[in-house]
Amino acid sequence: MNHVVIGTLAFDSIETPFDRRERAVGGSATYFAHAASKFGPVGLVGVVGKDFPRAALADFEARGIDTAGVEHADGESFFWSCRYEADWNTRHTLETRLNVFAEFDPKIPDEYKGAEFVFLANAQPRIQMRALEQMTKPRLVVADTMNLWIENDLDDLRALLGRVDGLVLNDEEARMLSGEANLVRAAGRIVALGPKFVVLKKGEHGAFLLGENLRFALPAYPVEHVVDPTGAGDSFAGGFMGYLAHTGSLDPSSIRAAMLYGTVAASYCVEGFSIEELARHRRSSIDRRFDELRSFVTP
Amino acid sequence: MNHVVIGTLAFDSIETPFDRRERAVGGSATYFAHAASKFGPVGLVGVVGKDFPRAALADFEARGIDTAGVEHADGESFFWSCRYEADWNTRHTLETRLNVFAEFDPKIPDEYKGAEFVFLANAQPRIQMRALEQMTKPRLVVADTMNLWIENDLDDLRALLGRVDGLVLNDEEARMLSGEANLVRAAGRIVALGPKFVVLKKGEHGAFLLGENLRFALPAYPVEHVVDPTGAGDSFAGGFMGYLAHTGSLDPSSIRAAMLYGTVAASYCVEGFSIEELARHRRSSIDRRFDELRSFVTP
Repeated sequence: MNHVVIGTLAFDSIETPFDRRERAVGGSATYFAHAASKFGPVGLVGVVGKDFPRAALADFEARGIDTAGVEHADGESFFWSCRYEADWNTRHTLETRLNVFAEFDPKIPDEYKGAEFVFLANAQPRIQMRALEQMTKPRLVVADTMNLWIENDLDDLRALLGRVDGLVLNDEEARMLSGEANLVRAAGRIVALGPKFVVLKKGEHGAFLLGENLRFALPAYPVEHVVDPTGAGDSFAGGFMGYLAHTGSLDPSSIRAAMLYGTVAASYCVEGFSIEELARHRRSSIDRRFDELRSFVTP
Repeated sequence: MNHVVIGTLAFDSIETPFDRRERAVGGSATYFAHAASKFGPVGLVGVVGKDFPRAALADFEARGIDTAGVEHADGESFFWSCRYEADWNTRHTLETRLNVFAEFDPKIPDEYKGAEFVFLANAQPRIQMRALEQMTKPRLVVADTMNLWIENDLDDLRALLGRVDGLVLNDEEARMLSGEANLVRAAGRIVALGPKFVVLKKGEHGAFLLGENLRFALPAYPVEHVVDPTGAGDSFAGGFMGYLAHTGSLDPSSIRAAMLYGTVAASYCVEGFSIEELARHRRSSIDRRFDELRSFVTP
């Protein structure tokens, strides 16, 4: 297994201005793995409770997502609920119950330890570091993070940043982590903290990559009917990493293409609740939308 | 004169979190003409009061901006003052005094009437229409508008939309005009009202063009030090139209290049107060930044 993600498997209850879903399968690692699996096998490290449906995990397996790294714990699975405003940019978290994730101590299966491509989905930086320390020859390590850890676990996060190649985060988090309102300067400051590159996710406004030798900005794919934005960032990361793991190349043109694939994965994600739309589309649809996006942004 | 802009010449008093300027030269037509003049001559139609400095107009002339269309009226020039918040996206208009612009009735000089490229800067749609009616063979007519006219002069605005080729407006105005929150659908609805294309200006998030046969999205140029965002949209329009008037081509590749030139003009505009930075840069700097932007966005 050359590509591994460590993160959450969860139940999400989502309320949008138009519809709602109760206890749909979600979680950062779920979204990531579904996007990444379009490009090749991916190993999933996380924890579920007794309530997580075995059929869902079997379906993951059928899609090329290896679930040998999913721990089955006593208790209930991670649960999260939220409500979106009509502009989609305003999200109210209604409830977060860590449940079995509260005691999560990632154990990387032996057959995953040699993976070259590693994604540390959003979690406490200490947990992300525990996972990373078990990897024996990572070549591209990318982490996600969030405002909670920037506020409460900054020392752990800084230690992690010294060990990762890339960091993905949203624009507000970048401003918070860097203390810079200007996003270009914010990204520059974050790169100075350790990562070789940072990807700023700006939702409907696209994504911006700033690295040592590469700057690349990309608008979002113009989705006409957003159903549920949950998981878009993790799907982006899954498409980005999945493509790179598949090609094995980290040159600038591959990284640019990976940004497009990430954007395409995110666009399918938001067109349905949970992983409904993301799971439905095969690599051939992904490639069609990739071509469309490329023509949409090529000067 | 093959390229003409109709709009305001004004004094602007601007307060930012970092600095301020009192009664600097501004106005939609001023910004537009400075950007457009990098590519070739442009004729300026507007009105100034007794207080507008003759030296400023002489400086316009020295830059290839023809001021034969500037009417000199008794009274004071258009005055506008505003204050920006630190995020730049929040702008508080402190005062608007139309002064001589209140009675403005555009009179197009004979030598401008045959211009093929016409920009109707933000003004009451009725005034924009009065100007347009005097043009004898326009080939590309683009208009700007704002929330005030969408709210108060919608019938006049709709009549105008039936007569223009393109409309530029910001994302909030597009949502207001179309009644659609989703920007892709909003742009589609506006195109259905008459224009062949619409350009949505999204400030630091770039611009998006939706036309009958063309969709093109472009991030903003990554400006590291924003000094004053005033005039960015008009500078964008000036670079866009100036390039098209210069090449004389309206094919998709020219329109894409024009979007980049508009973005570059806007980036110089926001790096200084008033037209300070925009005026300082020659076509050679514009072309250097154009190449940089192209490499920044090319997949």
